[in-house]
Amino acid sequence: MVIKNTALKTDIKMTTDTLRWDEEYDVVIVGSGFAGLAAAIEARQAGASTVVLEKMRIPGGNSAISGGLLAVAGSPLQKKEGIEDSPQQMLDDMLKAGMGLNHPPLARLVVERSASVLEWTVETLGVKYKPNLNHLGGHSVPRTYITACGTGSGIIQPMLSRCRKLDIPVQKKTLLGRILKDREGRVEGVEVRREYLFPRADSGRSQRIRARRAVILATGGFGRDVAFRMTQDPRLSEDIDSTNHLGATAEALVAALEVGATPVHLSWIQLGPWTSCDEKGWGVGSMFTLLAGFPYGIMVDAKTGRRFVNELSDRRLRTDAMLLQGRTPVAIVDSQGVKHATTLDQCLKRGVVKAFDSLEELAAFNHIPLPALRETLERYHLCLAHGRDAEFGKPLAQGLKPIETPPFYAIRLLPKVHHCMGGIQVNSRAQVLAVADHRPIPGLYAAGEITGGVHGASRLGSTAIVDCLVFGRIAGQNAAEESSASR
Amino acid sequence: MVIKNTALKTDIKMTTDTLRWDEEYDVVIVGSGFAGLAAAIEARQAGASTVVLEKMRIPGGNSAISGGLLAVAGSPLQKKEGIEDSPQQMLDDMLKAGMGLNHPPLARLVVERSASVLEWTVETLGVKYKPNLNHLGGHSVPRTYITACGTGSGIIQPMLSRCRKLDIPVQKKTLLGRILKDREGRVEGVEVRREYLFPRADSGRSQRIRARRAVILATGGFGRDVAFRMTQDPRLSEDIDSTNHLGATAEALVAALEVGATPVHLSWIQLGPWTSCDEKGWGVGSMFTLLAGFPYGIMVDAKTGRRFVNELSDRRLRTDAMLLQGRTPVAIVDSQGVKHATTLDQCLKRGVVKAFDSLEELAAFNHIPLPALRETLERYHLCLAHGRDAEFGKPLAQGLKPIETPPFYAIRLLPKVHHCMGGIQVNSRAQVLAVADHRPIPGLYAAGEITGGVHGASRLGSTAIVDCLVFGRIAGQNAAEESSASR
Repeated sequence: MVIKNTALKTDIKMTTDTLRWDEEYDVVIVGSGFAGLAAAIEARQAGASTVVLEKMRIPGGNSAISGGLLAVAGSPLQKKEGIEDSPQQMLDDMLKAGMGLNHPPLARLVVERSASVLEWTVETLGVKYKPNLNHLGGHSVPRTYITACGTGSGIIQPMLSRCRKLDIPVQKKTLLGRILKDREGRVEGVEVRREYLFPRADSGRSQRIRARRAVILATGGFGRDVAFRMTQDPRLSEDIDSTNHLGATAEALVAALEVGATPVHLSWIQLGPWTSCDEKGWGVGSMFTLLAGFPYGIMVDAKTGRRFVNELSDRRLRTDAMLLQGRTPVAIVDSQGVKHATTLDQCLKRGVVKAFDSLEELAAFNHIPLPALRETLERYHLCLAHGRDAEFGKPLAQGLKPIETPPFYAIRLLPKVHHCMGGIQVNSRAQVLAVADHRPIPGLYAAGEITGGVHGASRLGSTAIVDCLVFGRIAGQNAAEESSASR
Repeated sequence: MVIKNTALKTDIKMTTDTLRWDEEYDVVIVGSGFAGLAAAIEARQAGASTVVLEKMRIPGGNSAISGGLLAVAGSPLQKKEGIEDSPQQMLDDMLKAGMGLNHPPLARLVVERSASVLEWTVETLGVKYKPNLNHLGGHSVPRTYITACGTGSGIIQPMLSRCRKLDIPVQKKTLLGRILKDREGRVEGVEVRREYLFPRADSGRSQRIRARRAVILATGGFGRDVAFRMTQDPRLSEDIDSTNHLGATAEALVAALEVGATPVHLSWIQLGPWTSCDEKGWGVGSMFTLLAGFPYGIMVDAKTGRRFVNELSDRRLRTDAMLLQGRTPVAIVDSQGVKHATTLDQCLKRGVVKAFDSLEELAAFNHIPLPALRETLERYHLCLAHGRDAEFGKPLAQGLKPIETPPFYAIRLLPKVHHCMGGIQVNSRAQVLAVADHRPIPGLYAAGEITGGVHGASRLGSTAIVDCLVFGRIAGQNAAEESSASR
């Protein structure tokens, strides 16, 4: 809290000396997903005493339930598969999807460090990945790794192990209340609710934790905060589902804005195109669509039987096209393409994906006009034969096969709130910038989805984990080196 | 300033009682454009003592230099000209341009009160308008009034007269520093710099003005604040010109965010499509393009000689199309269409618009391939003959004539930063909403371009003045009725 008025100075006693602190660390990290744990590991390794605060009963947040996808430019698997790529090419893809709103220095850091951060997950954390690359929407080439287990927990669990080894406490059921500044405007700690029971605002008891060097915010996005997201996009009412875990709410973002952080791109809220109307949240269907339906199949409007968008375009273009009035999108793949789906058994068991012995049955069940669907497939197969999707510009992988071998699989799709591109502004050192003067707020860092700028108007798939890990590490390294005025 | 921690209460003396106030009013209004003066007139008429603070040396800001255009649904001129329209139709136009991000209750208020606010300007203020309507981009029908003098000063001057009659002081060279809250979190006044000399931050002396009932922020947008606008859109560097007056900077927006106002749609910054590269700012060319070039002429890319966008689509679509790499847009109109241009003489005198005796000369001067230009005109004239622009969907006014009667006029165009759709969130009573709980910040109102929500992703031309007047009046009326805890 800054008290600028000199006439009042003698009346204000709210200084470090009079605050009672319940605990003290060099670096206090809020949030236990990719960004928070990466920051914690780096800060601890740099010699700082470190704590991770997590409001939920379990750590990991959205990170743990994510798809575990990492876009890497110039990776070992790309070399193995003979795919030409570069940080600049990945940056170009990100800026195109981001409509040029991306903050270029931040996006550049993510692509330039993508290969080294992948290596770090393997060498330092022991993360295992599947042996082949994936081609996600909006990327000009296949460059996406996926964890061996197919979810983000394949990275979160090794990170938590590493934290245990480094004696970094991860304190759960601890909600950030306020960020505390000293009289010079330096962040010196946080007020929290201990034994907090999400989402009960009145639960728990208040405590103060001192951060001798810095506070790092790594609390993720606000995709599940209906009231907050509706301030930015009034269409995203509670009728719209989300892929996010229930704790993806805006408390820490609000706390940061209240101490003068700069809001950036808050109204850019991304819906994911791969989710199904036949289950809640991210479910098991998303990975089916992402890894099989879109790259190896086609998406048609059940009403017309026709394709209507490049299935591998960026998420904004796809969801905009899918949400056009009256459209009921269905993704279709055959027994060849389905081999890439990691969640097929669960999808079939839960009825999210349905298998059909013939196109006739698939069309009848989904109320798709069969002649139109046949014609759509013929046109698509002609595109495959020519190696070019003249109609929608989908990048066609080499050796992509016609969709003709039964059984056929179909999933009914419905976009859901997935990612908040916007958040608070940081610089290349992960320092939070003040809205008043565009300079760092001393002692305050942020990383991951709570920040805005890296992705601009639309985040490309599989760039979030890389963003979180790169900037989490940067935040942890720099926070550990802060020299606090109050030490 | 809210001090929530009870343990500290005895140490905090920063209450109303210890603050020295240099002046006191019931309602303190910051900004002297359409919104601020409308608020002042209403507050004063409701019996509140009122002051208007203006940081520049002259009042009126962007409002005074604007085009003086008012979109009105269901106006006397529409009845006279037999044009069918309704508030719902205008709302639909606004939501379409706004990509659905508009806050519906706010946009609805603007359209529903557009006719009565027009009447208010005539009856109460004595504003004079030209006797014919204009058809602006993105509007489904002609519905735009223009002041008799062709600029916003045609409204600002009568408003200032009215303020003088009502004994409302308009205090110039007074910069808002901070918004002051009492210990309950109620806004109780402002800290200002008196004798401030824009843009010298160190000029002037500090004073405090008490607002017994409320503070109203009506300070406009931040289109000229390069550092601030680049946080939201990094492409808008100082190389990009703006139509705004130099004072369109972000101080008041920042002050509002620092007391917990909700930021909304900040990254939606509009460029205007009608400005010329042959003069600075809004200039004299914009009204030429707006009233003649776009509705009665065509816009072509000088490189190809072809049209490339509906000249009457919304501003975002037009500027996106105009800024595509390598395009050099030129608007062309003939001696018939030019009759609608109110600034022709000035445009010719300054060389912003050039007249040519033949198409050949026009094409040669502007480096447009003549055969392509001839073909473009032939196609356009066919559209006129069929009453429908099959290629780009421009709404063609009845009786629109072919572009064939010399002299021909051309203006070279370049989009410039024009309007900030984003700002702070208000409700239908013009109360500023807190980011922490989405409830009104007691004692704080806002109206006009400093607010966000009415226009969503893209503001339609001639809806800003109506927005400012409608919400300025609402803010003034409600602020005057606030019962202050400190009275």
